[in-house]
Amino acid sequence: MSLPLHAVIMAGGSGTRFWPLSRARRPKQFLPIVGRKTMVEETVERLRPLIRAGRVYTIANADQTRTLRRLLPRVPAGNLLVEPAGRNTAPCLMLAMSRVFLRNPKAVVAALPADHLIRDAARFREKLEAAAEAALAGDHLITFGIPPTFPSTGYGYIHFEKERSIEAGGRVFYRVRAFKEKPPYDEALRFLAAGTFLWNSGIFLWRADVFARKLERHAPELYPFWTRMLKAAAKKSGKDMAAIFREIPAISIDYALMEKAEGVLMTEGDFGWSDVGAWSSLCDVWPRDGAGNAANGGLQALDARDCLVYNPKKLTALIGVKDLVVVDTADALLVCRKDHDQKVKDVVEALKKKGSLKYF
Amino acid sequence: MSLPLHAVIMAGGSGTRFWPLSRARRPKQFLPIVGRKTMVEETVERLRPLIRAGRVYTIANADQTRTLRRLLPRVPAGNLLVEPAGRNTAPCLMLAMSRVFLRNPKAVVAALPADHLIRDAARFREKLEAAAEAALAGDHLITFGIPPTFPSTGYGYIHFEKERSIEAGGRVFYRVRAFKEKPPYDEALRFLAAGTFLWNSGIFLWRADVFARKLERHAPELYPFWTRMLKAAAKKSGKDMAAIFREIPAISIDYALMEKAEGVLMTEGDFGWSDVGAWSSLCDVWPRDGAGNAANGGLQALDARDCLVYNPKKLTALIGVKDLVVVDTADALLVCRKDHDQKVKDVVEALKKKGSLKYF
Repeated sequence: MSLPLHAVIMAGGSGTRFWPLSRARRPKQFLPIVGRKTMVEETVERLRPLIRAGRVYTIANADQTRTLRRLLPRVPAGNLLVEPAGRNTAPCLMLAMSRVFLRNPKAVVAALPADHLIRDAARFREKLEAAAEAALAGDHLITFGIPPTFPSTGYGYIHFEKERSIEAGGRVFYRVRAFKEKPPYDEALRFLAAGTFLWNSGIFLWRADVFARKLERHAPELYPFWTRMLKAAAKKSGKDMAAIFREIPAISIDYALMEKAEGVLMTEGDFGWSDVGAWSSLCDVWPRDGAGNAANGGLQALDARDCLVYNPKKLTALIGVKDLVVVDTADALLVCRKDHDQKVKDVVEALKKKGSLKYF
Repeated sequence: MSLPLHAVIMAGGSGTRFWPLSRARRPKQFLPIVGRKTMVEETVERLRPLIRAGRVYTIANADQTRTLRRLLPRVPAGNLLVEPAGRNTAPCLMLAMSRVFLRNPKAVVAALPADHLIRDAARFREKLEAAAEAALAGDHLITFGIPPTFPSTGYGYIHFEKERSIEAGGRVFYRVRAFKEKPPYDEALRFLAAGTFLWNSGIFLWRADVFARKLERHAPELYPFWTRMLKAAAKKSGKDMAAIFREIPAISIDYALMEKAEGVLMTEGDFGWSDVGAWSSLCDVWPRDGAGNAANGGLQALDARDCLVYNPKKLTALIGVKDLVVVDTADALLVCRKDHDQKVKDVVEALKKKGSLKYF
């Protein structure tokens, strides 16, 4: 294809929701939990037929970038960008975009989290390509909305205008009316009933110069940092970039730019997306036996059903239990009711307070 | 004390109910599950103030006897008796009794399982001493009945005659009317209501010559083996003993002798007895936290209660679960509902059928 499509993979996450498997130095994107490879590897491989490795960038902290270098040998080392500090997604993407912009202001960039699952990779690439064509042609920032399957209070929503659709590359895009933060349950119910709210996938697509222009117009508090970043990137000065990151406000790209910009479009992300937000989300990803048990590792189940087991090196026997998440690692074991798996991070917090540092 | 009291500790058990901690070569009596030492060590230590090591005998298979030699260095090696084959408790005790009889026909012997818990060791010794005095004086086989706390279908019962008690050494002994095998639930309920049925602890006490005489009178099919055993024991011929064990019927001492003999007495075993029959029985043994969780190993519990965790080398995190047994070992993990823990042996059977031999 002739599209100048690039990818920026945001790989700087540091969640604790997959504890005890995930640790400070091994966050979710570095775990092989949805396939045999790590999530970040799968993210890059998924793009391969569409975007060659030389056009793939990652952005993460220095420590994580060392890991990425090992996991992604085909991506040029110069594309593995280091964010000097965690400052949320706006500064992170601005840094990466400054590098791409210097390379080619007309480059179209897909900004992708490193730790999402996409089941239908072919459909995903198809959608990405269509969005890239729309972004290349016009003046738009493009987002991907995920058709909601339940009134989630854990995702942000994109409120779109059903009546104001436009076509590009044979695909339908909707004008975005507003971005909504994680709603309370009642509001989530209303969103679902309305039919004009999709989940915000955190996947974005834009042309580099359009990104810069929108920043200038709609994010005036960030734009001075953008021009400084361009200079630092041109000089390849890590020191200058670090100085910028000491001053730049920590703010999400949704809040800093997407909510405020005009000409934001949404296309439907109907490609089997999951943010794999916690252990129980893997129940829909891993193959299950007749009793609904999904296991990574040997399983002997007796009157047990709908459990998720991660214990690849050992035998696990389940007797008379249901709806459990069981995760066994070299130094810690988790046994958790499936519908309580959001509390895993609370356990990590409790351990931190106790000073049990070896467990994260 | 001047009582010629000896102990025969039956250490040949091979249960699977404490899998995955217990394995073929490491049955319950060799596990440190009720204290810091193994159950067989605790059994010997409990007797120490009353019975010196030279008067303690063990009986088990050859492999187990090697373990006993390591665990019980104070017991003379010659007292660690090997049963050539597993033939239930009657042949096992006959072999051990033949050795004690040759040493001293008037020796009083307490026959004890190696894998029972006795919480009140002082009271236990007091009861043992009183029973020994009664056994020394008279013509009695003495048993210990455990006051039942629930209508168990897992224990045998001793039906005693409340009205026909006799006193010896300041203690009350009751005449035994019958031994009852593990009853169905309805019958167990009736036993409890009647008040004249106690659990059969499997602890017995007798004088060696009385044991021999009762065998002669009430177990004529076994008595010829007894005389042959005496000869084999006198010759210290393992070969002869092995030949006897190839022929002798496999039968329990309850069924072969206690049920049939006259002059069987029962005394109340009110010393905090438990046969520690399965993982959940340890809930009453291990200290519990405020939420009822008992753990061997570090525990981080969140909305979790009444669980039992054995995972001494790791941290265990429990979230939102209750009434679970969790046992983690080097190669296998068990997660089991407490009231299903009798099925642990079924899992072992299933693994055997699969040919997964490494797990037992």
